[in-house]
Amino acid sequence: MTSFFAQLEARSQAINSLLCIGLDPNPKDFTSAEAVRDFCFRLIDATSDVACAFKPNSGFFEAWGAAGYQALKDVIAHVPTGIPVVLDAKRGDIDSTAKGYAQSAFEVLGASAITLSPYLGSDAIQPFLTNAEKGVFLLCKTSNPAAGELQNLIVDGHYLYEVVAQKAQSWGSADQIGFVIGATDTEAMHKVRVVAPNAWFLVPGIGAQGGDLEAVVDSGLRSDGLGLLLSASRSIAQSADPHAEAVRLRDAINAARQQANKQSSDSTSSTNIENVARALAEAGCVKFGSFTLKSGKVSPFYLDLRRLVSYPKHLNVVGAALARLLSTLQFDHIAAIPYAALPIGVSASSQSGRSLIYP
Amino acid sequence: MTSFFAQLEARSQAINSLLCIGLDPNPKDFTSAEAVRDFCFRLIDATSDVACAFKPNSGFFEAWGAAGYQALKDVIAHVPTGIPVVLDAKRGDIDSTAKGYAQSAFEVLGASAITLSPYLGSDAIQPFLTNAEKGVFLLCKTSNPAAGELQNLIVDGHYLYEVVAQKAQSWGSADQIGFVIGATDTEAMHKVRVVAPNAWFLVPGIGAQGGDLEAVVDSGLRSDGLGLLLSASRSIAQSADPHAEAVRLRDAINAARQQANKQSSDSTSSTNIENVARALAEAGCVKFGSFTLKSGKVSPFYLDLRRLVSYPKHLNVVGAALARLLSTLQFDHIAAIPYAALPIGVSASSQSGRSLIYP
Repeated sequence: MTSFFAQLEARSQAINSLLCIGLDPNPKDFTSAEAVRDFCFRLIDATSDVACAFKPNSGFFEAWGAAGYQALKDVIAHVPTGIPVVLDAKRGDIDSTAKGYAQSAFEVLGASAITLSPYLGSDAIQPFLTNAEKGVFLLCKTSNPAAGELQNLIVDGHYLYEVVAQKAQSWGSADQIGFVIGATDTEAMHKVRVVAPNAWFLVPGIGAQGGDLEAVVDSGLRSDGLGLLLSASRSIAQSADPHAEAVRLRDAINAARQQANKQSSDSTSSTNIENVARALAEAGCVKFGSFTLKSGKVSPFYLDLRRLVSYPKHLNVVGAALARLLSTLQFDHIAAIPYAALPIGVSASSQSGRSLIYP
Repeated sequence: MTSFFAQLEARSQAINSLLCIGLDPNPKDFTSAEAVRDFCFRLIDATSDVACAFKPNSGFFEAWGAAGYQALKDVIAHVPTGIPVVLDAKRGDIDSTAKGYAQSAFEVLGASAITLSPYLGSDAIQPFLTNAEKGVFLLCKTSNPAAGELQNLIVDGHYLYEVVAQKAQSWGSADQIGFVIGATDTEAMHKVRVVAPNAWFLVPGIGAQGGDLEAVVDSGLRSDGLGLLLSASRSIAQSADPHAEAVRLRDAINAARQQANKQSSDSTSSTNIENVARALAEAGCVKFGSFTLKSGKVSPFYLDLRRLVSYPKHLNVVGAALARLLSTLQFDHIAAIPYAALPIGVSASSQSGRSLIYP
């Protein structure tokens, strides 16, 4: 059984694309559920060779009642095998009701993943995680103008959306839960990446809304060059040549990925260095005084990396920075010398997907 | 054009009931969407004479796909004219998508109101407020075990759910937006009542979950004896005699209302007095020193009620306390002497529904 996020990674790597095609048939542009369905069929046919995933927007189908619901099911069935479908439904209910929604999304409609609201807490999410083949994207920082009214409230020195990402770490693994983060807020993208170094982000708002693609990719890309599912809909659907526009976007995303990898593998990358420095300082690894090193030299400071294991979040920041440094090198294994280096090696290994060895 | 909440008040007063019948056909108990529909038809027929409103749970219908969606529409159409229908859908999306959901709930399905999630902010709510005949219940403090994970986070000294209620005051009036508050948290009920003295609360979790009805009514009842829509489903549907069980619950609610009114109209009611004292102190109305009153007497303290107008929330606490004191008296108008008493009179008038006069 392959998890949704493993399916997503396989698809992404197979066609070298992080582009998600949003299926957003605005009701005002159509006269019937059948017309909605046919529009989506055409868009899927035109773009499926470059689509890492498709994302139908449930509300636009529900506006047509039972016929719209049937159209949504037909549209999902029309997506070629092997391309994951994220149902953008933003559900959030409890217990048996959540089971009903999960049954609707995964079994009746056949979607591979669903977007959910975090407001009700973990027991509203759990019913969607029982099928290991299906995935969840939790609303974290959305792209609408009023998103900050709640999501940017300060809780104990952190934005609410950071707290959501932090809490979700205990609700499910990065192989079960990703996050929705709008392309309009690269600060949020960066902050949540620190909290959730291995999670996938579903990012609406590229394309028509014209977010800065380079900044988005630079702040959100995972250390293995994946982890961002960048969604565009209107800019592709309303283009004279949807396929050409999808290709253009995929290529623009890939150019931004290469640029981001190049920058971050440069050891002078300020973001990289700053994150590592902050992580080490916060974990209490940085000590000042007079230290005699093994070499016999006396140093005015000492980095006690053993402390990192007590701070898994900070350990992962260091591991991610290492994974990025390694991403352009040719090698077979990461070798980590116990004890201090072993946990760091494990983190870098887990975030780069490269095998680990130790003596 | 009558607003949803005015319709709800009219219905409540006409049959002297605050009981909402939840239509929660758990998919595991049924074999088809038709069976779901027939179950709901029977429950509606059995209880409509005591139902202030019906609340179908969208997820339980969606689990049956397009046929379930059609069943939901049929069920809503089956509710007798004059009884409001709250669609429990907990939606929350932005802009044109929200319009799609509003179209689905209000136009296609024919519901009178809908439950919404606040996480996306005001622009996810606005599209549901454009039709003045329709209403919104915003998720505030839900009744599930994990509700507090987010909703009880502390933001600037207040619970997140209080902040939601506070912010929603500027998103729409009490005639547009009510709040969902679970029967399991009477502290939340009380706190949100202070923030939103005129709003309706939709309260799931009475009946089967056995919340303390007296405590719920005492902490949440509006000063006019309305403002609580208390929802029960399983305890009624699974009863041997659903009508008798609905009557029993309605009567238990009404007994709790009378008890609450009696308590709060007693001027020694500790909650009432405490709230007023706190409001006056927080607004800086309570002053200690040596004050010569108009009567010539010297007093060691003085209540400067003029300050209250600068604290609308506190003014409403005082107005609500007055409205409760007045609720058992026979009279035609509230007379308020300018200047200090006039704003207080306006608040008491607005919260008791009694007309105001001033010289």
